[in-house]
Amino acid sequence: MTSSTNQQILLKTRPVEEPKESDFALVETPIPEPGEGEVLNRTIYLSLDPYMRGRMSDRESYAAPVELGSVMVGGTVSQVLKSNHPQFSAGDFVLGYDGWQAYGVSKGETLRKLDPNQAPISYALSVTGMPGMTAYFALLNVGQPKAGETVVVSAASGAVGSIVGQIAKIKGCRAVGVAGSDAKCDYAVKELGFDACINRKTQELSFALKDACPNGIDVYFDNTAGPILEAVLQQINLGARIPLVGLISQYNAENPPPGPNLMPLLIKRALIKGFLVVDYQNRQAEFLNDVSQWLREGKLKYKEDIVEGLENASDAFIGLLQGKNFGKLIVKVSDDPTQ
Amino acid sequence: MTSSTNQQILLKTRPVEEPKESDFALVETPIPEPGEGEVLNRTIYLSLDPYMRGRMSDRESYAAPVELGSVMVGGTVSQVLKSNHPQFSAGDFVLGYDGWQAYGVSKGETLRKLDPNQAPISYALSVTGMPGMTAYFALLNVGQPKAGETVVVSAASGAVGSIVGQIAKIKGCRAVGVAGSDAKCDYAVKELGFDACINRKTQELSFALKDACPNGIDVYFDNTAGPILEAVLQQINLGARIPLVGLISQYNAENPPPGPNLMPLLIKRALIKGFLVVDYQNRQAEFLNDVSQWLREGKLKYKEDIVEGLENASDAFIGLLQGKNFGKLIVKVSDDPTQ
Repeated sequence: MTSSTNQQILLKTRPVEEPKESDFALVETPIPEPGEGEVLNRTIYLSLDPYMRGRMSDRESYAAPVELGSVMVGGTVSQVLKSNHPQFSAGDFVLGYDGWQAYGVSKGETLRKLDPNQAPISYALSVTGMPGMTAYFALLNVGQPKAGETVVVSAASGAVGSIVGQIAKIKGCRAVGVAGSDAKCDYAVKELGFDACINRKTQELSFALKDACPNGIDVYFDNTAGPILEAVLQQINLGARIPLVGLISQYNAENPPPGPNLMPLLIKRALIKGFLVVDYQNRQAEFLNDVSQWLREGKLKYKEDIVEGLENASDAFIGLLQGKNFGKLIVKVSDDPTQ
Repeated sequence: MTSSTNQQILLKTRPVEEPKESDFALVETPIPEPGEGEVLNRTIYLSLDPYMRGRMSDRESYAAPVELGSVMVGGTVSQVLKSNHPQFSAGDFVLGYDGWQAYGVSKGETLRKLDPNQAPISYALSVTGMPGMTAYFALLNVGQPKAGETVVVSAASGAVGSIVGQIAKIKGCRAVGVAGSDAKCDYAVKELGFDACINRKTQELSFALKDACPNGIDVYFDNTAGPILEAVLQQINLGARIPLVGLISQYNAENPPPGPNLMPLLIKRALIKGFLVVDYQNRQAEFLNDVSQWLREGKLKYKEDIVEGLENASDAFIGLLQGKNFGKLIVKVSDDPTQ
């Protein structure tokens, strides 16, 4: 601990449409002291994820909004500095939810200890963490892909989508991505092993989907909603399954835009089902078991997009909603002693 | 058989938006002769159902469109006049699919014999037929209502909706209807035992749903899509189920209108699933068993809206899409000897 002050990013005003730098305030505060059963952590990595846009807004959602003047929430990988909890000692690496700040105090029960010899500690924010669990359970439990079927995923090079396509391949499916640039598509096909990837900015979606999915679409893993969902619905097969996992395309919208016409669901007896990873917290072991094995076997590759410095978090987050990141977006808040 | 000519209603032109009388042609043709394994029937009752609008159109759907110049399709209850099939004899009453005509020839395998002592023969077009099966399987298999939950159904006094609400009550749920007039709502509440019914033409849907569903909505049986689905989505509970059974609100639309914003599905981890009764044909026995018992016990009531004369079928069908019928719409094509 070289510094004696904490840095925090507070939510200053609720964003209207796209968040702006001025919606956030970087402040310095004293480093807090841990109470009984609590742990003081130094943040190493902060995860930035699209769901955070929902927390900035006071519309009804599945979680309470961040209060104005409070620290923005977020998943963190940290090193323990002081522990008043029997399960943690100074020097331990932990996954927690300390938010957009350099130091945080958490109840010990909310932390998970990380073993830096098993996987890079930052992976706990992505492939072995929340995005990985989202990909795994929404695809396997709602999507229920069967070998030989075609799985389409939007935001295909992102934190969740990149894992979805690779699990689809592991399960013997044809994996087709939709992404926002040629570089992202190249990465999905050449590095991750997707069968095809559509650049939604340069290709006409309907034609491109027909080309990429000659046998129709059985599972659409929807991270975005909007025009991709609309185009996909025209090409779903009988009994198709659509886990609705995110609506990135509309997170900045002040008024919720209309959705797709639902006639194809009736014609094809298909389903759309909303998914939130919190419902699967008690099944983490099953997920970690499979994913660790796939990582060891080299069947699962992963890309991180690491931004240096907490002061750049808000700018990086604004870019995330515009699709500017390439791989899982993470802010490196302080040195990672495991590297 | 007093007449020697058949009367048929043909599809003359494909309707644009609302069907018009001039889209149909009433013609006289010779009464056909049954071939080997076939049966000649005199139509007593012809069923009119919203799905027929889809068959008039050549857009992609779950069934081929009726060809121009052909007899409009439809379920019929008839009396056998001549039979070349060992299972049927002259005088038998049968459920078939002879369409909008006074006499039809069918393969014996496609007919179901009806026992006029068990229930009025016309019920085979409604409560013990396709609309009844639709209500039963879409509610119980997709909706999966549990005692104490709230079930909302649109087109609540119609052929399907009226059964949905009564089955919901049998299963111990709160049943709330949405219908198009005070008379229909009174009928749903006072005759069928719904807990509440909203007149969508005079009441503000969101407020009325809040009033009628103080514990939120667990199952929405959707016959209509459109604004009712949109309002319901704002009030669904965690894990809500929405069988999408019809989209009456848009059957006349030339271009499919947008659907509802799907954010509530994500927030509430809810599902919308398309349903077609054809997928349940092999489970008819299970359905008939339950429904016959409920009819005997007086737990299931049923209302028919009977229009006299085949020549009035097209006008009655146009009214059906405008919600003018009150109860299951049936055309009485010729005398019912069981009455």
